[in-house]
Amino acid sequence: MIAILVIGNELLSGQVQDTNVSHMLRRFGASGHKVGEVRIVSDGIHEIAQALTALSARHQWVISTGGLGPTHDDVTMAAYAEAFNQPLQTCEALVQIMRDYYGARLHDGHLRMARLPASVELIHTDHIHWPLIKVGNCFALPGLPEVFLLKFEALMSVLPAQPPLFYAAVDTSESESDFAAVLEDQQRLHKGVEIGSYPKGIGKGSFTRLTCKSTERSLLEACFESLSQLFKQRETLIGSESPKRFEPSS
Amino acid sequence: MIAILVIGNELLSGQVQDTNVSHMLRRFGASGHKVGEVRIVSDGIHEIAQALTALSARHQWVISTGGLGPTHDDVTMAAYAEAFNQPLQTCEALVQIMRDYYGARLHDGHLRMARLPASVELIHTDHIHWPLIKVGNCFALPGLPEVFLLKFEALMSVLPAQPPLFYAAVDTSESESDFAAVLEDQQRLHKGVEIGSYPKGIGKGSFTRLTCKSTERSLLEACFESLSQLFKQRETLIGSESPKRFEPSS
Repeated sequence: MIAILVIGNELLSGQVQDTNVSHMLRRFGASGHKVGEVRIVSDGIHEIAQALTALSARHQWVISTGGLGPTHDDVTMAAYAEAFNQPLQTCEALVQIMRDYYGARLHDGHLRMARLPASVELIHTDHIHWPLIKVGNCFALPGLPEVFLLKFEALMSVLPAQPPLFYAAVDTSESESDFAAVLEDQQRLHKGVEIGSYPKGIGKGSFTRLTCKSTERSLLEACFESLSQLFKQRETLIGSESPKRFEPSS
Repeated sequence: MIAILVIGNELLSGQVQDTNVSHMLRRFGASGHKVGEVRIVSDGIHEIAQALTALSARHQWVISTGGLGPTHDDVTMAAYAEAFNQPLQTCEALVQIMRDYYGARLHDGHLRMARLPASVELIHTDHIHWPLIKVGNCFALPGLPEVFLLKFEALMSVLPAQPPLFYAAVDTSESESDFAAVLEDQQRLHKGVEIGSYPKGIGKGSFTRLTCKSTERSLLEACFESLSQLFKQRETLIGSESPKRFEPSS
């Protein structure tokens, strides 16, 4: 289970619209990674540190984005240091990578970004020159979308593969109130399947989509057959999507 | 300060892309309401209750969306009851509203949605037939976008007006590492203004946008002049947006 922590005042104020979260949710969904929670917090050291502490205790991995630059509003590494109760110190391994990259152009502004918590791990991949920054079970990714996308692919290459998720859907012309009780029985019968109920639209043309998700294809197929039969009998079945590998919306 | 709590497995899995959060962030930003945190959590009673408890303690208002329907995956009101340590009970005032609306069509499925925490307040507005649901300092809005939008306007009509936020921006061709130290001095000089630094793009054509935000127009103007002068002197000023009322991105 993964938690996503997005850092940035510019997102909370509506100044900038986030695209990184929806990208992560789609990619994680497609690859079978379950996301347990998403948080967007401000550029405050304590706010970020509190979120890191809470999320890292309850999830296998935390992926943060944003706040890695050299300016005064980039405080993510200071927050990691607070959350993991470690000093911030100059990471000599990262300084060496910077020296190789910038040569004579390396200056103090760059070195600000080499101040990392003492126990940081730098993880090298084939996807991008710069290493992934990992502290405990938390990965710190940048917020700038162009760089984020590269780093995210690097991250995906190091996370262990997950079993794929399967998906099916049944559409009914009924509204949720009409079938809530019988659907509850269906969820009780099909325990290995997550049944969701989603009204689509209001008024004329509205319907309800029932979605089934499971990592067990056979359980999913049984649940799909059962729901299809149920709404066929109620003469309200208006469509269905047969069991297939789950693909997030684009 | 407002917190937003979004409830729904379908969002975390990437199955459905959220539009309610970006709408709220834009509208709150435009009306001077500050959002301190956004969380997206799953359809779990304890997960929602924990988030409500944490967010309601630290924010003036919490706005939740989703999980108000009658099906087994709609557990938001059970979570409110847990968070506020109250029993769920049939809200007779809401049943009466349902009776007036549905007449003879009223049935058990509808009544499932009238199970609310004991201390619930129903707030009537001119925007929508159905009242706002408020418990403590938390408002429970539905997730279905068509209904959410109506309820959100009702909510905006009952939240007290806020002083507007002012905004200005200065674009420089420098990268953040080049000016991080001098910008830190500027932030120290202009305490009533929030200065943000945002790299735009990578490689050729990339630049950095410095944004200034404040509820005090005179402080904002002084900060804007100071930053404009600074980057003019450094011969890297490439554009600016003069102080004006803040309008979120669309």
